Amino acid sequence: MRRERVRDVLHQVADGALDVSQALDALAFEPAESLGFATVDHHRALRQGFPEVIYGAGKSAEQICEIASQIAERGDSVLVTRIAPDAADRLQASLDGVEVNRVARTAYRQGTDPAPRGNGTVAIVTAGTSDLPIAEEAAVTLGALGDCASRITDVGVAGIHRVLARRAELTAASVVIVIAGMDGALPSVIGGLVAAPVIAVPTSVGYGASFHGIAALLTMLNSCAAGVTVVNIDNGFGAAVAASRITHS
Amino acid sequence: MRRERVRDVLHQVADGALDVSQALDALAFEPAESLGFATVDHHRALRQGFPEVIYGAGKSAEQICEIASQIAERGDSVLVTRIAPDAADRLQASLDGVEVNRVARTAYRQGTDPAPRGNGTVAIVTAGTSDLPIAEEAAVTLGALGDCASRITDVGVAGIHRVLARRAELTAASVVIVIAGMDGALPSVIGGLVAAPVIAVPTSVGYGASFHGIAALLTMLNSCAAGVTVVNIDNGFGAAVAASRITHS
Amino acid sequence: MRRERVRDVLHQVADGALDVSQALDALAFEPAESLGFATVDHHRALRQGFPEVIYGAGKSAEQICEIASQIAERGDSVLVTRIAPDAADRLQASLDGVEVNRVARTAYRQGTDPAPRGNGTVAIVTAGTSDLPIAEEAAVTLGALGDCASRITDVGVAGIHRVLARRAELTAASVVIVIAGMDGALPSVIGGLVAAPVIAVPTSVGYGASFHGIAALLTMLNSCAAGVTVVNIDNGFGAAVAASRITHS
Amino acid sequence: MRRERVRDVLHQVADGALDVSQALDALAFEPAESLGFATVDHHRALRQGFPEVIYGAGKSAEQICEIASQIAERGDSVLVTRIAPDAADRLQASLDGVEVNRVARTAYRQGTDPAPRGNGTVAIVTAGTSDLPIAEEAAVTLGALGDCASRITDVGVAGIHRVLARRAELTAASVVIVIAGMDGALPSVIGGLVAAPVIAVPTSVGYGASFHGIAALLTMLNSCAAGVTVVNIDNGFGAAVAASRITHS
Amino acid sequence: MRRERVRDVLHQVADGALDVSQALDALAFEPAESLGFATVDHHRALRQGFPEVIYGAGKSAEQICEIASQIAERGDSVLVTRIAPDAADRLQASLDGVEVNRVARTAYRQGTDPAPRGNGTVAIVTAGTSDLPIAEEAAVTLGALGDCASRITDVGVAGIHRVLARRAELTAASVVIVIAGMDGALPSVIGGLVAAPVIAVPTSVGYGASFHGIAALLTMLNSCAAGVTVVNIDNGFGAAVAASRITHS
Amino acid sequence: MRRERVRDVLHQVADGALDVSQALDALAFEPAESLGFATVDHHRALRQGFPEVIYGAGKSAEQICEIASQIAERGDSVLVTRIAPDAADRLQASLDGVEVNRVARTAYRQGTDPAPRGNGTVAIVTAGTSDLPIAEEAAVTLGALGDCASRITDVGVAGIHRVLARRAELTAASVVIVIAGMDGALPSVIGGLVAAPVIAVPTSVGYGASFHGIAALLTMLNSCAAGVTVVNIDNGFGAAVAASRITHS
Amino acid sequence: MRRERVRDVLHQVADGALDVSQALDALAFEPAESLGFATVDHHRALRQGFPEVIYGAGKSAEQICEIASQIAERGDSVLVTRIAPDAADRLQASLDGVEVNRVARTAYRQGTDPAPRGNGTVAIVTAGTSDLPIAEEAAVTLGALGDCASRITDVGVAGIHRVLARRAELTAASVVIVIAGMDGALPSVIGGLVAAPVIAVPTSVGYGASFHGIAALLTMLNSCAAGVTVVNIDNGFGAAVAASRITHS
Amino acid sequence: MRRERVRDVLHQVADGALDVSQALDALAFEPAESLGFATVDHHRALRQGFPEVIYGAGKSAEQICEIASQIAERGDSVLVTRIAPDAADRLQASLDGVEVNRVARTAYRQGTDPAPRGNGTVAIVTAGTSDLPIAEEAAVTLGALGDCASRITDVGVAGIHRVLARRAELTAASVVIVIAGMDGALPSVIGGLVAAPVIAVPTSVGYGASFHGIAALLTMLNSCAAGVTVVNIDNGFGAAVAASRITHS
Repeated sequence: MRRERVRDVLHQVADGALDVSQALDALAFEPAESLGFATVDHHRALRQGFPEVIYGAGKSAEQICEIASQIAERGDSVLVTRIAPDAADRLQASLDGVEVNRVARTAYRQGTDPAPRGNGTVAIVTAGTSDLPIAEEAAVTLGALGDCASRITDVGVAGIHRVLARRAELTAASVVIVIAGMDGALPSVIGGLVAAPVIAVPTSVGYGASFHGIAALLTMLNSCAAGVTVVNIDNGFGAAVAASRITHS
Repeated sequence: MRRERVRDVLHQVADGALDVSQALDALAFEPAESLGFATVDHHRALRQGFPEVIYGAGKSAEQICEIASQIAERGDSVLVTRIAPDAADRLQASLDGVEVNRVARTAYRQGTDPAPRGNGTVAIVTAGTSDLPIAEEAAVTLGALGDCASRITDVGVAGIHRVLARRAELTAASVVIVIAGMDGALPSVIGGLVAAPVIAVPTSVGYGASFHGIAALLTMLNSCAAGVTVVNIDNGFGAAVAASRITHS
Repeated sequence: MRRERVRDVLHQVADGALDVSQALDALAFEPAESLGFATVDHHRALRQGFPEVIYGAGKSAEQICEIASQIAERGDSVLVTRIAPDAADRLQASLDGVEVNRVARTAYRQGTDPAPRGNGTVAIVTAGTSDLPIAEEAAVTLGALGDCASRITDVGVAGIHRVLARRAELTAASVVIVIAGMDGALPSVIGGLVAAPVIAVPTSVGYGASFHGIAALLTMLNSCAAGVTVVNIDNGFGAAVAASRITHS
Repeated sequence: MRRERVRDVLHQVADGALDVSQALDALAFEPAESLGFATVDHHRALRQGFPEVIYGAGKSAEQICEIASQIAERGDSVLVTRIAPDAADRLQASLDGVEVNRVARTAYRQGTDPAPRGNGTVAIVTAGTSDLPIAEEAAVTLGALGDCASRITDVGVAGIHRVLARRAELTAASVVIVIAGMDGALPSVIGGLVAAPVIAVPTSVGYGASFHGIAALLTMLNSCAAGVTVVNIDNGFGAAVAASRITHS
Repeated sequence: MRRERVRDVLHQVADGALDVSQALDALAFEPAESLGFATVDHHRALRQGFPEVIYGAGKSAEQICEIASQIAERGDSVLVTRIAPDAADRLQASLDGVEVNRVARTAYRQGTDPAPRGNGTVAIVTAGTSDLPIAEEAAVTLGALGDCASRITDVGVAGIHRVLARRAELTAASVVIVIAGMDGALPSVIGGLVAAPVIAVPTSVGYGASFHGIAALLTMLNSCAAGVTVVNIDNGFGAAVAASRITHS
Repeated sequence: MRRERVRDVLHQVADGALDVSQALDALAFEPAESLGFATVDHHRALRQGFPEVIYGAGKSAEQICEIASQIAERGDSVLVTRIAPDAADRLQASLDGVEVNRVARTAYRQGTDPAPRGNGTVAIVTAGTSDLPIAEEAAVTLGALGDCASRITDVGVAGIHRVLARRAELTAASVVIVIAGMDGALPSVIGGLVAAPVIAVPTSVGYGASFHGIAALLTMLNSCAAGVTVVNIDNGFGAAVAASRITHS
Repeated sequence: MRRERVRDVLHQVADGALDVSQALDALAFEPAESLGFATVDHHRALRQGFPEVIYGAGKSAEQICEIASQIAERGDSVLVTRIAPDAADRLQASLDGVEVNRVARTAYRQGTDPAPRGNGTVAIVTAGTSDLPIAEEAAVTLGALGDCASRITDVGVAGIHRVLARRAELTAASVVIVIAGMDGALPSVIGGLVAAPVIAVPTSVGYGASFHGIAALLTMLNSCAAGVTVVNIDNGFGAAVAASRITHS
Repeated sequence: MRRERVRDVLHQVADGALDVSQALDALAFEPAESLGFATVDHHRALRQGFPEVIYGAGKSAEQICEIASQIAERGDSVLVTRIAPDAADRLQASLDGVEVNRVARTAYRQGTDPAPRGNGTVAIVTAGTSDLPIAEEAAVTLGALGDCASRITDVGVAGIHRVLARRAELTAASVVIVIAGMDGALPSVIGGLVAAPVIAVPTSVGYGASFHGIAALLTMLNSCAAGVTVVNIDNGFGAAVAASRITHS
């Protein structure tokens, strides 16, 4: 409708009802979005190549189902993160073709057009078995974004040869996502082994003074391997999007 | 110059070289600011009624003098906060009419047009004498913004009658800025005494566990008097701008 | 009864049983409240224009119902915040005319005299849909305080055009309450767009290192837009009272 | 039994079987308590005038009942703090004369000898109704310790006249325990009103940035009223013992 | 002057110009302090027995000298804490009879009337030699308040026999102030040895994770000896005032 | 399989198909573990003398049973820590010879070869009865590692004679593990009494400002007894492994 | 030398002095690095394309000069970060061709071979003028790593049109480094505007509760724009290396 | 002297002047230390094998020289840690044979009897060159305690082969002290490589969010290698004493 308002101004210019100077003033005070920002926004979605994502935590099963069906109707892909088990059941019952990953706490339904493929493979590395839910969230997200993911699990630094044994796979990756709780030391070691971008994800796994991931977060921010970047605690989704920004650039 | 680009589009519409639909598309992808955002920005400055402010901390005397002279040349008012003593001397030497308040660590030079007057009086209340630099910063800023300020000093809650004795002045104010370090308890008492807006400013005054103002900040955020708002530690400038937003609304 | 004690002194002065000097001494040591503080308190309630408010968290349904019925008997308005669903049910069963807002977790019953109207409209802006309960708490409180509220929802800064598209509404508001969790960045943007007072409310929405609202709280205290003030985490009620202090001043 | 060992040494000295030098060496390496430390310990209990106290949190009902019955058999008073409702029921069923205070979460059974009476009255002051459980814990503990307690409730500083109205009672107390959550400002005001010792108890009552009592704790540690002392968050028991140390000194 | 206003009302009552009801209303709205609060304040000073105290940190030598000379002129005692060496020199030069304690960073000048004596002796116990400045601040303050202090130094718990060796002195004290940095463990041991009130003072002495006294502060708040109270970090002055409240009660 | 790859290189050298220089290059780029790191790993297990340990928290009963049966099949000892009661039941049902310690939350099944015995005795000292679960976890772990443990319980510093009475046992230990919550002061006292290594374990036991063990952790890190080392909060397992490293060195 | 040891084994295999099985065992226990890890390390340096970097903070001018001259002798590029002004002078005096950037606090000397060029342009965006030193550090580092950098300065979100006006440049960049102190809100806005990787750098610029960059750090970790990654506070160097990992992948 | 008092009691028992029961009572109330605690203390010094240590921080050069000369007169070894350069000069001038290590900030003078030798070698491992002062403090302390130390420097995990290359030395050590700042990850790697006791020392080296060593401290407390113990930030002295407790046990 606001686009109509700009059109009106332009018609008046075309008709001579407004001179250029008057039109310029009128447009100067027009809210920016009236000039097609919605279009730009769509454009952004296309360019960024990732579907709309529903953050499931704190939303009811009803809300999730309704938003998901609106997205699905447009033919877009549906991705829900942090979805509760019962909400996932409800979503599968109400919408065809939804894949639920209960470890990752995700629900995914591909849209009519697959996401454009990213370059190369994203390696998802975990220090311990307790980090798997975050790794799975990253893997599902990467799949939705058109990326190819490989997994290297349980290679914590207390048994350093486990990491070294996977060096070939690490070196082959175009981006490495490193997920670790407790001491969060793994990204420092991997950051020194590979030349590719390394994205570190602290997890809330650990004993008392791990403070639900703060210890690992601080370790990663202070990594002695230069050029390691960090996302929020337990944020496998964010790490996957960051990796996909790289593989699609 | 970008404004020129819009003008060109409009001229082409006026000339019939572009039809309305083509012009609409052209404008839709034009960066927002090309449509007079700079004008909007000036408009905002006029509406908000406060001059450009130079945050002096971390700037050299040379930088401050140069920025100040550019502002002064436009006829605008110059306000510098957190200015070091020597930088203040340099500024006074290089520009006429600069008033320096060494307690407030401010330098001020009024522009050609005075700021529009705010409604009523802003009361600046301090709990202890050590809070005075912040109170002065607030007072100088209010002056620059066109507000009238009164001061009620050294009325900390450990001698509660001192606050009560000033109740008439407090009640008469249109906004009350309450500045306190240590326990930061004064805004809770004043928030219960007056109906006007109360803006609390924690200061970094105090012994060990005051943690440079964190104790007072937390006290104020948890004030049991409803509707007290808080600004950053030692931020007398911010409190004054907040008060002035109220008196000019 | 203490008022009686002052009356006695005055009678004795009137009767000549006490001379002025003796009376003065007697009164000097009389507790302050014997002189009508209760009256002053009532006066304050009238002036501040907001009804007594019951903070429901940690109170039993019985306690809430009893306090509410006492207030209602006096003809005053009843507002309960943070009320549990079952307590709300109990309150509706025991008292006529109670409106429950389950998103806001509030119960409200208007008294015999409506609150005096505030000036203008208070805009309640939220960054994401998870911030809605806090926004609703603010809206219900504003209604009880006699204020008119408008809502602008889901305009987080990651899609900046969404904020810009609502600029007209924002500019028209007499006070803007901005509610945001996660990065808490929205008040900085809005504080730069409007000249009116801006009250920021951090919410406890977010991933790991949001620390239940601390991240957003710190962002808002450090807002680069001057004059933004802040209330406690999730404190929609406090923001509404702060706004109402402004609209009634 | 170890006392017997010392007695043996002494008998051997009396009998000439050990000379003084040998005995001295023997005793020098004897563990300290063999010399009657248990007695000293009993002595301490008598002097300090407070019965053994069972901290109920984290103990099973069985454990509490067994420890309590052992104490009761000796004729000593039994005091259990932080007792769960079902453990309290079990204790009352298993032992005669146990008084349970469900608000305070305490169980108490007086021993054969009452505690020595403390001097004067301990005033227990609370800022809000949510602080009552801590106040009750303090009151029950004071009773067990032989102290007389008065209560002044709901006199938070946002309505400052409520405190002032109770000044006479406050001034009459030999010790004042002040209990407050949220902003924790009340001890600062009371510390300025009375000359008696003031013991501040922060409570975990409050919104987001109260951080479960940290805000109130910091406020109290930074009290601008000199000579206010502080105990741990929600520690009504500790405040009562501290007060009783004063009234029995 | 406001006292005069009350006197006027009373004169009018005595003269029959006002009836009792009118006078009652007039007084009810009179600010509390007009009724002799200043007197009450003086009364409080007398009762509390401690002279006005100047907190020297953040005040210039000029400010300190001026405030001190005003107090001295009234015949009151002057106590300055946290005074810088040069300010102390200036004060001694400008005022007769000032005693400076450079370890305690205090300056003291007794007034015409000595403070009323407190009951018994206050023991000041320190864990290490680095805690001495705080102990001295406490000792000077106690002297100014009319209390008798004894000192037990360097009895940290790592050599537990050092504390035990001083048990007789500890037991004889009417109040024990325990000052400790690093692990802050000493008050827990002493709290178990004596029945008297124990006031713990954390100091900012220590290595990295002592966090300028936070470690010791937390230790003391969590003391396993019941009834230990705590003051702010490095607050020897506050501990002395707290002790004096006890010895004068 | 990778071992096979090295074997191939060696065969080619033996056959003359590769010269030494070529073989050297081939091996230089071979992943480290292909050279028998798994063997090294086994070697490490033998040397370190401790069986594989399953951290039970966050694992399902099924996962625990499966991992345990794999370890048991190899003849190795099985130790599970932080096991939930029902998982322990399941494990006992599925595997012979499993001993469950419900206080320690451990399950243990000895393998075919007992662990090599450590030197001397490890004393496990606790400050209060609430620290027992952590002490039991340490004791069970020590047993699995081949160490002999003695227990000294409930000797908190508030009754200092209790510690002193056990000095002989403390002095006789080759390592002392000290477990304490609340003020965490016990390691400082014991560190001064014994010459042996002292390992401090903070526990999450305590009131408000114990912050789930942070207070005790900081106390221990700042211990005034030199040479006390610290493990994570509630980490009885880690303390036992640290002790066993010492007794097996 | 250890490489020699492997060569010896291979020679013995070639000579038949060792059979393959014996050689395999010998190599299995050889430390990993004897197999050419040093070579791998050199390889890594070549692959990663960045020269050795000297962190100047905490090193003397002598130490820096010596390390730098050793690197320069090998023909490698020398980059020193956080270099003090006088150390920079010393370095320029002792080594030809050193370029010092005093805002960035860097010294740089290109080696014989330029670094391989990265793909595209890295945009360095700053919120305020105080963030410039960090931006310069990033720019100098990027130059040393073979990357092309553009700068967009002073586009903080309080004047949102300033960012929007630079959208074309932002969109054109292959990686965007966003540097902001205070509220740290800028990366959230830019993360929503561009599809490219966004690396956020919090700076220690700001008032009291910015806590030397913690506020901005938390904001960025909680960015509501998905896929923003974060480096340490003030770590312009790290952000540049992270960007270069992307442009060289 | 107090020992004399016990002797008196024993003489009276021997003489029949006191019967056993009376003597028992007399001794029961005798302070513990009168029974030879001083002797025990001397015994402890001998057993623990470490000389008295002077913590130089916060002591004047005069104080240090005086304490040192008293220790030296007894023939004991003198060790001063954290000594300022000028105090070290003064100490060397006033006392023969003092060795100053300016990197370690220590002064040492051996006593007449050398410390008993510890078993084996203590390896001191550092992650970066900035950790050297702490490593030197540990080395000097170990020398004073009779221990043999080896050093492995600059083997941070970002170049993991550097650690692996030193595995033989690490495995040969009887205790390993690992010193690291920034991410503090090195102890986790080394804890997995060796079976010996590992003592981790966090250092205050690092950028912004290292928080002066807190990041490294948390990393080490959460080490995924079991049995790593931790000392305070920058506490090389404490780590050395802990190691020496092990080598002398």
